[in-house]
Amino acid sequence: MAVASGTVPVVVDTARSEHARLRPVAVDAVRLDDAFWAPRLRANREVTLSAQYRLCEETGRIDNFRRLAGTVDAPFQGKYFNDSDVYKWLEAAAWALATEPDAELRKTVDELVETIAAAQRPDGYLNTYFARERAEERWTDLDLHELYCAGHLFQAAVAHHRATGLRRLLDVATRFADHICDTFGPEAAGKRTWSDGHPEVELALVELARATGNRRYLEQAAYFVGVRGHGRLGAPYGRWGSEYHQDDTPFRAAEEVVGHAVRAVYFACGAADLLLETGEPALREASHRLWANATGRKMYAHGGLGARYEGEAFGEDWELPNARAYAETCAAIANAMWNWRLLLAEGEARYADVMELALFNNVLSGLSLDGETYFYQNPLADAGRHRRQPWFGTACCPPNIARMLASLPGYLYGVAEGEVWVHLYAASTATLRLPDGREIGLRQRTRYPWDGEIEIEVEGEGEFALRLRVPGWCGTGATLEVNGRQAETALVPGSYAEVRRTWAAGDAVRLRLPMPVRRLESHPNVAENVGRVAVTRGPLLYCAEAVDNPGVDPRRVRLGDGPVREEFRPDLLGGVVVLAADAIVPPEAGWNGALYRAVSAAADGADGKRVTLTAIPYYAWANREAGPMAVWLQTQV
Amino acid sequence: MAVASGTVPVVVDTARSEHARLRPVAVDAVRLDDAFWAPRLRANREVTLSAQYRLCEETGRIDNFRRLAGTVDAPFQGKYFNDSDVYKWLEAAAWALATEPDAELRKTVDELVETIAAAQRPDGYLNTYFARERAEERWTDLDLHELYCAGHLFQAAVAHHRATGLRRLLDVATRFADHICDTFGPEAAGKRTWSDGHPEVELALVELARATGNRRYLEQAAYFVGVRGHGRLGAPYGRWGSEYHQDDTPFRAAEEVVGHAVRAVYFACGAADLLLETGEPALREASHRLWANATGRKMYAHGGLGARYEGEAFGEDWELPNARAYAETCAAIANAMWNWRLLLAEGEARYADVMELALFNNVLSGLSLDGETYFYQNPLADAGRHRRQPWFGTACCPPNIARMLASLPGYLYGVAEGEVWVHLYAASTATLRLPDGREIGLRQRTRYPWDGEIEIEVEGEGEFALRLRVPGWCGTGATLEVNGRQAETALVPGSYAEVRRTWAAGDAVRLRLPMPVRRLESHPNVAENVGRVAVTRGPLLYCAEAVDNPGVDPRRVRLGDGPVREEFRPDLLGGVVVLAADAIVPPEAGWNGALYRAVSAAADGADGKRVTLTAIPYYAWANREAGPMAVWLQTQV
Repeated sequence: MAVASGTVPVVVDTARSEHARLRPVAVDAVRLDDAFWAPRLRANREVTLSAQYRLCEETGRIDNFRRLAGTVDAPFQGKYFNDSDVYKWLEAAAWALATEPDAELRKTVDELVETIAAAQRPDGYLNTYFARERAEERWTDLDLHELYCAGHLFQAAVAHHRATGLRRLLDVATRFADHICDTFGPEAAGKRTWSDGHPEVELALVELARATGNRRYLEQAAYFVGVRGHGRLGAPYGRWGSEYHQDDTPFRAAEEVVGHAVRAVYFACGAADLLLETGEPALREASHRLWANATGRKMYAHGGLGARYEGEAFGEDWELPNARAYAETCAAIANAMWNWRLLLAEGEARYADVMELALFNNVLSGLSLDGETYFYQNPLADAGRHRRQPWFGTACCPPNIARMLASLPGYLYGVAEGEVWVHLYAASTATLRLPDGREIGLRQRTRYPWDGEIEIEVEGEGEFALRLRVPGWCGTGATLEVNGRQAETALVPGSYAEVRRTWAAGDAVRLRLPMPVRRLESHPNVAENVGRVAVTRGPLLYCAEAVDNPGVDPRRVRLGDGPVREEFRPDLLGGVVVLAADAIVPPEAGWNGALYRAVSAAADGADGKRVTLTAIPYYAWANREAGPMAVWLQTQV
Repeated sequence: MAVASGTVPVVVDTARSEHARLRPVAVDAVRLDDAFWAPRLRANREVTLSAQYRLCEETGRIDNFRRLAGTVDAPFQGKYFNDSDVYKWLEAAAWALATEPDAELRKTVDELVETIAAAQRPDGYLNTYFARERAEERWTDLDLHELYCAGHLFQAAVAHHRATGLRRLLDVATRFADHICDTFGPEAAGKRTWSDGHPEVELALVELARATGNRRYLEQAAYFVGVRGHGRLGAPYGRWGSEYHQDDTPFRAAEEVVGHAVRAVYFACGAADLLLETGEPALREASHRLWANATGRKMYAHGGLGARYEGEAFGEDWELPNARAYAETCAAIANAMWNWRLLLAEGEARYADVMELALFNNVLSGLSLDGETYFYQNPLADAGRHRRQPWFGTACCPPNIARMLASLPGYLYGVAEGEVWVHLYAASTATLRLPDGREIGLRQRTRYPWDGEIEIEVEGEGEFALRLRVPGWCGTGATLEVNGRQAETALVPGSYAEVRRTWAAGDAVRLRLPMPVRRLESHPNVAENVGRVAVTRGPLLYCAEAVDNPGVDPRRVRLGDGPVREEFRPDLLGGVVVLAADAIVPPEAGWNGALYRAVSAAADGADGKRVTLTAIPYYAWANREAGPMAVWLQTQV
C-alpha cells in the first residue's frame, strides 16, 4: 500500500496492497445484462434507493445533519446510530451512480454531501447525536456507535470519491479520521486506549488509507484491531457481555466466532483488510481459524450467520435452529464482505463459494422482489408469520442491502499479474485492466444461476491466464472448451480452472458446470436437521412454501427418494427454476392434543398421503401469500 | 369461601372454597419416610435453607429491611425485587417448621418476622427498594415488582400463620393488602387502574382472603385478574412487549400461553385460585384452553415451560429447542402450582399427571443432590457447560425450590366429602381429616418412583372412598387388591380408581402400577425431536450423560430397538434405577470440517460402533463431572 488509487470505483481497493493475491476490478467495469441480477439492481436503483432516501427524510435522519448545519431547527430524531443509515445509503447511491448516470440521484447525493459537510464540527468531529445538548458526552460511551458511524462515513466518502472523482466528502472523512487518530491510541501518546462497541471503523480506515495513500489511517486501523480483547471497552459490557462486543479475546488469539454476529464479522473484515496490507501471519492464521469455525460449525445453509435472537449472536458450535434462526441480513452481507477480502488475500475458491452462497441466498432474501420490503432475520423454517417490512426502527439492513446490490458488479472478477479471475457468473460485459495496463474485454453469456453453461468471449491480446471458478457445489463432470476444443486443464470443484494462452480477438471459452439437484445433509451435530435434507441446485438453496403446496405444511412433509423434477417458470417470481418431487404427508391422526406419546402407540408414517412437493429458491420466499415454509425437509424413514 | 381456616398448614387452602372439588390436606399431616423425597426434604431443611439465609444476609437482602427498621445504616443493596427472595425463604422456612420443629430455624424466622414488621411504613406500604431516597417513586413503575413482592409477603405470612398459629406477619400482610386495595381499583372509586408487571399478587390475595376470611382481598384479586390485557400496564412495555407482561389479552379471552413463562403461569395460578372461589365459567374455560395449549404444544417432556432465552418466554406452538430450552426452574414450580390448583378445582387426574411430571423432573433438577447449587435453566441437551450455581443475581429460583420442597407433603393427598384422594405415591404416614371431621390414618409402603407397587394401610372407620391415582404414563395392566383380593374397580390410566367401602382397622389396598421403560416420541411438529425418542420409566424422564458413557456423545448416539435393561444402583446418585440399552455411535469420518454435504457422499450409519448406552433420571444430571447430555436420543434409521 503506497499511494491513492485515484477514482476507480472499486468496492475494496487492493490495487497496491502488497499482500493481496488479487486485485478487484472497478464496479463500472462490469455491466450486467442478465435476467437474474440486472432486474434486482434496477429495482435497487429505481425503487429501493428512492424509498430509502424518503424514509431517511421522514424519520429525521437527514434533518439531524441539517440541524447541525443550522438549516433546520429541531431536536435530534431517532437513535444514536442513525447517521450510519444515511452513510450507507450514500455509499449505495455512489455505487449506483458509478454504474449508471442518474441526474436526479446525483443531485440528491450532491446535496446530501453538502449537508453532511456542513454538519462537521470545526475539530473534525461529526456525529449528529453527540451534538448541541449532548456535545459534552462525545467519546464517553463507546457503545454508542460514534466510531461505527465514522466508519460508514469513511466508506461512503471513499465510494463517493471513487464514483465521482470528487474529494468533498473524502476531505470531510479525513478530517474526522484525523480527529479520531488524535484521540485514540497508545497511552504513551497521551491518547484514549479504549476499544469500541461496534466494529466497522477498522475496515473503513484501511479503505480510507487506500483511497488517500495516508498510512496514518492504516496504523490507526491496526491500533483498533489490536486493542480489542483486553478488557478496554469504552462502555459497559451490559446485558450480553464482552463476547457481544468482540472484546473477550484478542483477534490474533481467537479460536471461535462468538457474540454479536455482525460485530464479529465486521471485525473480521477489518482484520482481513489489515492482512491485505501487512500479510501478518498471526492475522492470517486467526482468520483461518475463525473462518473454519464460522463456515464449519456456525453457518446456515443459506450462508447466514447468527443463531440466536438474544444478542443477535452466534450460538455454540452446531447450534443452528431453523425457525428461530437470527441470520440477520447484515450478517450475511458481512459474510460476503469477509469472504471477498479473504478471496482477495489468498485467491482460494472456498471464499468465493461462501460469498456466492451468502449473496444468492441470505443477502437476496433480505429484500423483496419488488425492492420495497426487507427481512431483518432470515429463518430457514417459518409458521407463516415472518414477513418483510418496509423499514425498521433499527434500519441497518435496508441500506446495507442497497449498497451490496449497487456494488455487485465489482464482485464478479479479479485480476492479477497476467491473470483474469472469474468469481461469479452472470450474463454481462466487462472491460478489465490488468496490472500491466492491458485492457481485456469479456462477454459472459449464460442463464446462470438457472443453467450452468457459461460462454465467455475474450477480447484481449497477448498471453494471460483466464482463471474460472469451478464452484464447490458442482461435483464431477464439469467441462471446459476453448474455441470448441476441450481444454487441457483440471476442473476440480472448489478451485479455479486455468486457461493460459495467447488470446486472439474472438476467442471464446465454454464452461459447463453440472447443476443437478442436490440433497444436502447437515453434520449430525446439528440437532434440528437430523433426518432432514435440504435441496439445492447450483448456488441456490431451495425451500418449500405453503403457497405452492396447498394443504401441506412443508415442515411436516417427508420428501421421497425419487427423482426431483426441474422446470423453469418464467412467469413465477421473476422467473425461477421450480423443483418438484414426490413426498408423503404423514397422518395427523392419533395425537388427540398430546405432545408426547409412547412410540408403541404411534401410527406408521407409511400410510400418509402422497403429494407432489414443490420448492422454490429460498431467496424468493415470502413474496406471495403467507404460510409455512421449510428449507430442511424430513425424509422418509 | 367464607371465613378463615385457622392455623392448619395447608399449601393452598380450599377448605371452604365453594367451587373446589377437593380440599388439600395439611402439610404436617403427612410424614415422608421414603428414600426418594425424605432425603431431599432433609437436605432442604439442613443445607439449603441455612445456606440461603446466609446468602440473603451476605447480599444485603435482610439488611435492606433492617435499614428501614432503623437498625442498620447502609444503602439499599441489590435489585428492586430482592425482598421477594426473603419472603420466599420465609415461606419455605415456615413449611419446614410445620413438618419438623427446629428451635434454631424458629428463632431465625421469629427475628426475621420482627425485622420485616419493623420495616413496614405507617400507611402499610412495605418495600425496601422504594424507601427513603426512592419513597416518592412508589407505584410509579409497576414493572418494578412492588405488587410481586407484596404477593410473596402475603404467601409467606399465610404460611407463617398456618405453621405457627401466630398472626404477627399476617397482620403486616393485611395492612399492606389494605393499602393496595385502597390504591388500585376501578377509576370510579378514584383508584389507579393499572395492571402490574409481574403476576403473583393475584394468587396471594386469594390465599390471604382464605387465611383471613376477608372477602375484600378476594375482590381485589378479581380486580387484578380482570385489569390485565387492556393496555393498562403501569409500566413501559419495554424490549419484550405486552405479551411478556401478560397484558396482551384479557385472561378470559386468552387462547394461548405467551410471553414470560413464569409471569404467564403465576397469572394462571391466580385465575385458578379465583376459579376455586367463584366457579366462574369464563375462568374455567380460559383455564382449559390455556392448559391445553401449554401442555399440548409448549411443555417440555420434563414438565418445563419456556422455550426462549429472549424474554424467558414461551415460544410458538411446538417450538421446543432442547439445548437452548429455557425451562426456568421457577416456571416448572409454577406449572406444578397451576396444576395443583386445577386439580383442587376439578379433581381430574390429568392435572396430577402434569404436577407429578414437573415435580419429579424439572423441579427436582433445579437443585443439586447435595442441596447446595441450582439451575436457573433446565435444558434437555447440553454440551457440558451448563452447571448449577450456588446463587444468582436474580435469585428467584433457589428459594422457590426451597418452598416447594418444604411444602411437598401437602401435595400427596386430597379429601372431599366421604373421599380420600391419593395424588402422589411415597412411603409415608398420614393423618387426614375428612370434611365431616373423621380422622383417617394412612400408611403408604412403596419404593416409588423406582417401583410401582404401593401398599396403603388404612386406619379409619366407616364408609368412605379411597381414590387412587392411576397415572397416565402407566398403560394397561395396573391391578388393585383390597385385603389381598382384586378390587372391582376400573383402572384407567389418567384417572382415579375408587375403592368405596366400609373400612376396618388394618385394611390394606395394594396397587400395582406397571412401570415399564417407555420410549416417548414427540408430536412431529416439534422440529428438533423428529427421529428421536426420550426414555421414561414411571414418572421419571431419563437422560444419557457422558460420565456414564465414556467416549460417547449422547447427542449423537443412536438408540437401538432392543430391550432396555433396568438396574437399581443404591450407590449411585442417592440410589437410582439406571437404564442401559444397545446403541450405535455413527462414524465421525467423512466430514472433514464440512457442515453440509451432498447426501450421496454420506457414509452409512450402519457401520458405527456398537456401545451400551446408560441413562439416569434427568433430575440427577450434572451432579458428577461435566460432559454432554441428551434427553432426546436419535434412533437407528
